[in-house]
Amino acid sequence: MSQPACALCPVVASLRDGVSYRDPQSGSVSRKIREMPASVAVLGHDQFYRGYSLVIAKTHATELHHLPAAERAQYLDDMVRVAAAIAGALRPRKLNYELLGNTVGHLHWHLFPRYEGDPNPTRPVWEHAHDPKTLAPEEYGAIIAALQLGLP
Amino acid sequence: MSQPACALCPVVASLRDGVSYRDPQSGSVSRKIREMPASVAVLGHDQFYRGYSLVIAKTHATELHHLPAAERAQYLDDMVRVAAAIAGALRPRKLNYELLGNTVGHLHWHLFPRYEGDPNPTRPVWEHAHDPKTLAPEEYGAIIAALQLGLP
Repeated sequence: MSQPACALCPVVASLRDGVSYRDPQSGSVSRKIREMPASVAVLGHDQFYRGYSLVIAKTHATELHHLPAAERAQYLDDMVRVAAAIAGALRPRKLNYELLGNTVGHLHWHLFPRYEGDPNPTRPVWEHAHDPKTLAPEEYGAIIAALQLGLP
Repeated sequence: MSQPACALCPVVASLRDGVSYRDPQSGSVSRKIREMPASVAVLGHDQFYRGYSLVIAKTHATELHHLPAAERAQYLDDMVRVAAAIAGALRPRKLNYELLGNTVGHLHWHLFPRYEGDPNPTRPVWEHAHDPKTLAPEEYGAIIAALQLGLP
């Protein structure tokens, strides 16, 4: 289920019981939104796109078709449920759903809410460089609480 | 099912019977790989990333959670099947799966195969500007034939 040297396997293991995980290299903190059936939903450290979340597969795999069919369907359903919770709580103009894995192969969705005041609204987030936006602990907590309401 | 002024509804309508669709504005051509249960799989006009494909929902909707559950599951399954066909035929190092819709909201997956010789392999495709790479008709046809073998 997990793989040595993978940067995301420890996040999954840690967040099954814990509520946050600090990456030992970068110092960035992943805060648990919810453990889902096939994944862990995490609020991103960088909240430049308010509500930016990741949905990390519990199983170490690098492509969607490498997961067994039932687990894959569940993982995709988990992702859509998190996306719907973001949409319901934060009312973005649009959601961007991205599974890349170019540096860390372990399956993880990036969910970027895009808003009206977005600096580059018609283009992918990657075309607008920005400094990471970190929040006070209670601000992270408020977003997580709002998202959890949509994930009963 | 379709919506006036949507740029992708005519692509779907045209490719149910036809094999290609030329966008009247841009002149770019979408070539059908396969009609899938909930989508049409199309080879991208720009083949800078060899095998770059789109999986366009048959139904006009702008977020995944707006589709009825069964149709959404089918649409996601269609996408994974196309991704697996690309992986099997072209052997990229990694696949990138992106559903953005910032300019054209109608649900469409971008599937970008990433290769060893990629100009910016560790980063999203959007961080490396490039001129579109068009192919000779028979080259598009050869890629489509290879992908179709993986989509029985």
